[in-house]
Amino acid sequence: MPKTFSRQTVFAGRVIDVGVENHQMPNGRQSSFEIVRHPGGAAVLPLLPDGRIMLIRQFRPAIGEMIYEIPAGRLEPGESAQECAGRELIEEIGYSAMQILPLGGFWSTVGFCDEYIHLFLGRDLTVAEQNLEPDEVIDLCPMTFAEALGKVKGGEILDSKTQLALLLYQTLEKDQ
Amino acid sequence: MPKTFSRQTVFAGRVIDVGVENHQMPNGRQSSFEIVRHPGGAAVLPLLPDGRIMLIRQFRPAIGEMIYEIPAGRLEPGESAQECAGRELIEEIGYSAMQILPLGGFWSTVGFCDEYIHLFLGRDLTVAEQNLEPDEVIDLCPMTFAEALGKVKGGEILDSKTQLALLLYQTLEKDQ
Repeated sequence: MPKTFSRQTVFAGRVIDVGVENHQMPNGRQSSFEIVRHPGGAAVLPLLPDGRIMLIRQFRPAIGEMIYEIPAGRLEPGESAQECAGRELIEEIGYSAMQILPLGGFWSTVGFCDEYIHLFLGRDLTVAEQNLEPDEVIDLCPMTFAEALGKVKGGEILDSKTQLALLLYQTLEKDQ
Repeated sequence: MPKTFSRQTVFAGRVIDVGVENHQMPNGRQSSFEIVRHPGGAAVLPLLPDGRIMLIRQFRPAIGEMIYEIPAGRLEPGESAQECAGRELIEEIGYSAMQILPLGGFWSTVGFCDEYIHLFLGRDLTVAEQNLEPDEVIDLCPMTFAEALGKVKGGEILDSKTQLALLLYQTLEKDQ
């Protein structure tokens, strides 16, 4: 198996750790790569008691816009992905889920980053206390699943985890 | 609209540019964020003349594994997303596409990065000369669409752009 030969950390931040790494490729050649290391995260598609789903609109400094997303966050040390999903559901939309079911997962941008996002379905929701962090600005956007899927097809939902959660849910439901 | 108030570049690489940025949130509060700036990319789902699709398996240093993907790459300066998709199709799998049709697009990991990936469908393929870069190690994996979709559902395809291209193609085809 290929191995890292060396790593020079160029930035150690709160969220990401950036390094220049030398790796041996399967063809024996050694090359240098810029790699962002990230603890990974969890995201959850919330199914509301009235049959709708809950999306959020959130300001994202990286792109300077409010965009549609599902509740999500970074894994904290020692926390399972399922615990993270349950915690973010409460903090970001103010619902607690009796059931947090695995829906899939993905490498977000594997060319330069090791972030893996675990996807879940949140079922049997009951009202809890929303608890946003000071730098989170979030609008709640309940809608039908059909509306959300229309926004994926229409290019209004452009976030990877949100598109994937909706499309995976559609595909897996269809199998049942 | 929110504005960047200041940016301190902490790493200017070949592929990514990393900075600590201060932004004013819609609620007026100023906060500091670690942001990775990336030129964006294009990815293409190739439909082979025999009705199958072409996936690749590629070694990715960020995760130390060979994984299933569709052909993709970074936008070069002055290049359109469609041109990038056509170029990567030739370079990575050795096919030229008469038709490169828009399939969607997504922010890969909007919490800390501005990378946007444009998705395309490559149709009417003819054989061209594959031209890998020295640090690309790629196996060609032609398979049926049903096989590929099974690998998404079974957790064998874990790359965001590849999952999304397959699921979007399934959803949009179903509409026709």
